[in-house]
Amino acid sequence: MNKTAIAEVLAAVKAQGRTSLTAPEARTVCEACSIAVPKEGLATSAKQAAMIADEIGYPVVMKIVSPEILHKTEAGGVIANLTKAAEVRAAYKTIIGNAKSFAPDAHILGVQVQQMIGGGHEVIVGALTDPSFGKLAAFGMGGVLVEVLNDVSFRLAPAGREEALSMINEIRAAEILRGVRGAAAANQDALASMICSVSQLVHEFPEISEIDLNPVFAGPQGAVAADVRIIVNFNPPAAPFRPSQDEILKAMNRIMRPDSIAVIGASAEDGKIGNSVMRNLIDGGYQGEIYPIHPRLDEVLGKKAFRSVKDIAGSVDVAVFAIPARAVAAALAECGEKGVAGAVLIPSGFAETGNQDLQDEVVKVARQYNIRLMGPNIYGFYYTPKNLCATFCTPYDVKGKVALSSQSGGVGMAIVGFSRSTRMGVSAIVGLGNKSDIDEDDLLTFFEQDDHTQAIAMHFEDLKDGRAFAEAAMRVSRRKPVIALKAGRTAMGARAARSHTAALAGDDRVYEDVLRQSGVVRARSLNDMLQFARCLPMMPTPRGENVVIITGAGGSGVLLADACTDWHLQLMAMPPDLDEAFKKFIPPFGASGNPVDITGGEPPTTYRNTIALGLEDERIHALILGYWHTIITPPMVFANLVAEVVEEYRAKGVNKPVVASLVGDVAVEEASRHLFDHNIPAYAYTTELPVAVLGAKYQWARRAGLI
Amino acid sequence: MNKTAIAEVLAAVKAQGRTSLTAPEARTVCEACSIAVPKEGLATSAKQAAMIADEIGYPVVMKIVSPEILHKTEAGGVIANLTKAAEVRAAYKTIIGNAKSFAPDAHILGVQVQQMIGGGHEVIVGALTDPSFGKLAAFGMGGVLVEVLNDVSFRLAPAGREEALSMINEIRAAEILRGVRGAAAANQDALASMICSVSQLVHEFPEISEIDLNPVFAGPQGAVAADVRIIVNFNPPAAPFRPSQDEILKAMNRIMRPDSIAVIGASAEDGKIGNSVMRNLIDGGYQGEIYPIHPRLDEVLGKKAFRSVKDIAGSVDVAVFAIPARAVAAALAECGEKGVAGAVLIPSGFAETGNQDLQDEVVKVARQYNIRLMGPNIYGFYYTPKNLCATFCTPYDVKGKVALSSQSGGVGMAIVGFSRSTRMGVSAIVGLGNKSDIDEDDLLTFFEQDDHTQAIAMHFEDLKDGRAFAEAAMRVSRRKPVIALKAGRTAMGARAARSHTAALAGDDRVYEDVLRQSGVVRARSLNDMLQFARCLPMMPTPRGENVVIITGAGGSGVLLADACTDWHLQLMAMPPDLDEAFKKFIPPFGASGNPVDITGGEPPTTYRNTIALGLEDERIHALILGYWHTIITPPMVFANLVAEVVEEYRAKGVNKPVVASLVGDVAVEEASRHLFDHNIPAYAYTTELPVAVLGAKYQWARRAGLI
Repeated sequence: MNKTAIAEVLAAVKAQGRTSLTAPEARTVCEACSIAVPKEGLATSAKQAAMIADEIGYPVVMKIVSPEILHKTEAGGVIANLTKAAEVRAAYKTIIGNAKSFAPDAHILGVQVQQMIGGGHEVIVGALTDPSFGKLAAFGMGGVLVEVLNDVSFRLAPAGREEALSMINEIRAAEILRGVRGAAAANQDALASMICSVSQLVHEFPEISEIDLNPVFAGPQGAVAADVRIIVNFNPPAAPFRPSQDEILKAMNRIMRPDSIAVIGASAEDGKIGNSVMRNLIDGGYQGEIYPIHPRLDEVLGKKAFRSVKDIAGSVDVAVFAIPARAVAAALAECGEKGVAGAVLIPSGFAETGNQDLQDEVVKVARQYNIRLMGPNIYGFYYTPKNLCATFCTPYDVKGKVALSSQSGGVGMAIVGFSRSTRMGVSAIVGLGNKSDIDEDDLLTFFEQDDHTQAIAMHFEDLKDGRAFAEAAMRVSRRKPVIALKAGRTAMGARAARSHTAALAGDDRVYEDVLRQSGVVRARSLNDMLQFARCLPMMPTPRGENVVIITGAGGSGVLLADACTDWHLQLMAMPPDLDEAFKKFIPPFGASGNPVDITGGEPPTTYRNTIALGLEDERIHALILGYWHTIITPPMVFANLVAEVVEEYRAKGVNKPVVASLVGDVAVEEASRHLFDHNIPAYAYTTELPVAVLGAKYQWARRAGLI
Repeated sequence: MNKTAIAEVLAAVKAQGRTSLTAPEARTVCEACSIAVPKEGLATSAKQAAMIADEIGYPVVMKIVSPEILHKTEAGGVIANLTKAAEVRAAYKTIIGNAKSFAPDAHILGVQVQQMIGGGHEVIVGALTDPSFGKLAAFGMGGVLVEVLNDVSFRLAPAGREEALSMINEIRAAEILRGVRGAAAANQDALASMICSVSQLVHEFPEISEIDLNPVFAGPQGAVAADVRIIVNFNPPAAPFRPSQDEILKAMNRIMRPDSIAVIGASAEDGKIGNSVMRNLIDGGYQGEIYPIHPRLDEVLGKKAFRSVKDIAGSVDVAVFAIPARAVAAALAECGEKGVAGAVLIPSGFAETGNQDLQDEVVKVARQYNIRLMGPNIYGFYYTPKNLCATFCTPYDVKGKVALSSQSGGVGMAIVGFSRSTRMGVSAIVGLGNKSDIDEDDLLTFFEQDDHTQAIAMHFEDLKDGRAFAEAAMRVSRRKPVIALKAGRTAMGARAARSHTAALAGDDRVYEDVLRQSGVVRARSLNDMLQFARCLPMMPTPRGENVVIITGAGGSGVLLADACTDWHLQLMAMPPDLDEAFKKFIPPFGASGNPVDITGGEPPTTYRNTIALGLEDERIHALILGYWHTIITPPMVFANLVAEVVEEYRAKGVNKPVVASLVGDVAVEEASRHLFDHNIPAYAYTTELPVAVLGAKYQWARRAGLI
């Protein structure tokens, strides 16, 4: 990339106070970063135009060049398909005339004479600036059809070659670019390299807010950008607050694993939030120091109370706020003087109710004293390894491997209820509310190094700093599954989010692609997020793509196979020897192949033998079991034998994901619970959910590069 | 339609033993049913070709005409874009030469000279013969893009004008035909009329198995079919067995509501199927006569036994078979002689294990004696209004409004288990298995007039006679929701279905469109089918599209709004007066609009007042409630107040669908059950499911033409 040439162009644009580049400027920029553009020249007379056209070769297209005329077609400033010198001369005069009458004061630099490019496939390559994710590369098919179908892919810029190739191959119409109906394939390398160049360009020159190569003609030989539009912004918004990873960790470790907690607004009075928080800290079994702060009382719930955090002798890691919004800033300053690491701001009445100023004031105090803020407008947080319930909700103490966060309190309560109901073990549940400071990337950075956490599930309505999130998620998801439920993914939902937490939900296609690029597993619904959180940590990582269904219910087998397609799971093509091996265990009228249909009337040994074979054979990477309730193999007999055989193989070091769908009378519910207790996701009356959780595990493993 | 002209063409094709029409024949057929085609003539010399071209006007395209050459392009038999007489003369010679060397023995009738059509939008109009649904009309965009995206719509032929218009408007690229980027819109009336003509043609002349107008050029003035391909089949498969509606009803009423039942293979021995059936009949409380049939015993479980049904004095409505497959035919003949209306064939060992012949033999006996067969390879059936459990599964006795059927036994058991677990009231559960005779349309016809049934949910892997199903469903779904779970909707699922019940799963896009056309609500998963079956009968039919969300949890509101989009529910644009009215009940920092966010800390009165307003105001047609667990309004308080206010308005004659999503600690589960007991679908920890069941109700109501 010839950075000097680009910088010169941009400096000139800035000096002239413009927000867009002229065509010749855009061409210079393209040439400086090796983006192929049509041959062309700038003519300032009809005669010169014809000479240039003769040199380029026909046909040519001619376009007005004027900094004031951005939409050239509207100004009558474009004439295409000119096939001889006489036509070019005439066109020159027409264009100049049109431009003058369209914008009499416009400064006309001349008329561009350009080689007409056509043939190959018409595509669009571009880059833009997203308010949350920053610079993004974009790719789509050109033409009216795909414009209607909105078939575009995005990636964080700068995009590498692999990313660029995946952008090309993931649009719905990708098959066309590979060549169908005898048409030549587009040169994918040339296209990928154009995407890389564009994304590198906006990365190196952030003042370029938008670049649009449209159309690009991509044939077997290469790709040429027939038209280029570049928009600049020399006054970008202020960079978001981004502490270093070390700073985040230092603070988050004190906040999430504190040795001492102050409760600002602790109360002895039942029904008060400051009372619930105190009770939950004490009843939850937190072993660190608890300091109630109260203006008058000497003791709250048996703990010595203080007038101010400043009166506490020892150090204080976290202050939980249970006082009205308007009193927060002053108390926070005292925390700052005390050296408190983090403030958990339960109170509402800030940005979510329109009081942005009050929130800004609190943030300002926090920055001044280097205090990290959780909230405001939250239920608080749980961290079970420390028996810590810093919240006004009910205590929760089932320890386990998954950490969850929610932007909304309601969703937080659903997490607690679901966890209790399903006995899901969690390491943490965190409310983020208005996210005035601490947000998802801070949590990810903490959970990444938290040995108690093996998976992270997050509900959010927006990402205040999507770029920071993506960077953290990309790093964390390679080791631990990150699950996201993005609320406000539809227009109606986005509108609701705006009125709920003033969240700017953003373009959902951008979220979709960036979450994928970041290795995040995306849940489509609240229940899916909860089920994924519950199941992903209990399943081992599959070693490959070969999934086998073993079912006693042929009907379940069909539905399980449908669900596998929905979740992009590959039913293994059964090798003949393996097919024979399965056949030995199943009745002659059972169906081998995949699903392996052992039929309904079989005794426990048939389930046992086929499942053992599925675990034993190294070519199989995951098992989906379909159980059908019969007198011969009752539900609990099935559950026990599955738990046993899976554990037997685990003991031998064979650890494959196994999930089960149970159909039958109500006893299958207890059997499902038993299987869950043995770390085997198992569901009654649904063929979809067991496949969904396995599908989510695969999605994560693929995105993390583990398969 | 000029039927005589068409019949003449077809007679000639038949006489010559051909399976396709020549271009001139196809043209004659098109003209006979007013399908516009390009001007053209048949030339048998180069000179004549030029004369025809001069008359038509240029450009022209020329095509070889030979019954033996179907793929003209491959044979070098097509030359396009000829712009003058000399070119036409030369092309004639080239085409004849190419054809002769491609197929030296081909009978060459000449060369067609045709007006070249272009411009407008390129679309495809056609009709085909589906093995299950019979004649179908098809519509799609032409060109490579949509071929890749498979963007086609289908309808049962003959399609009416409304259906044809909906076909045009329902493809994903429909927007293009309405005119985008300044392009002219296609003439929808002309296209619809072309679809109608084609579908009428195959309807009137069933020997036409396929017709393909591709491409059709559709502009603002009209639509012209540039190429026509017609395939015929004078040896169609035998028509399926189709008793009249009266015959179906007469038999099904005796079968489903029998006064007497014989159990062929009744057994006193525990663990035998013939024992389970006897027990379930007796324990289930069936009040009709039960006649055990046993070769030796005089009594089975306290009931007098008979050697043969023929020995029974009274009449017998139904015989339940619990004997091995090979013994069925003989026993069935005896049932025939006795005048039994229906045989419930529990045994397996027929087509599903490859024994198609044995099954055919049984069907033959049944036809001979006019006995209807349920099965074989089934669990039997339940009909609760008669306390009838004619099955070897566990008895089920919770009476209610929904009838369910399943092709698979496993799915049948899931229905029983789910029903018991959720206390879902059912009228019937029927196993259809191999569907050698009775299938979904027979059941639909029975349930249509069964006052105990208000909704029908069906699981199937194929439809043996999709046309009969569609016709019955179209009729029934106008009065009672029909819900379908089509298993084998993916390629992997279809393969599994083939090996499971030898079902031919068919093209899923055809199922999708025909189910929609038939007014059927399609469930995507087993659990969805069960939830829809549970909820649709308990919800009143909405009177209009205006849905309002009232939520205590803003976060739930966002997710509920997302789910509304997924289910095509319209969040009402809140009129200012109504907005003001809601505002009076909610705190100033709550959000009016839609969702109405009453905020989390509110007392029961706020929920009550806003819900009452939602029920009261006639502009609102359905309510979605989002509850957030708080100390101020605990779960059961919420559940009770909602049940009360909804019942209060029901008593006043205001009956709107109300569904609820509850987030909070485990007490929300009991609250959800309480709401379900009051006919209000309510779910804990999910924002998706309550919206899904409401969405399904809306889908039904729209397809039934009730909104």
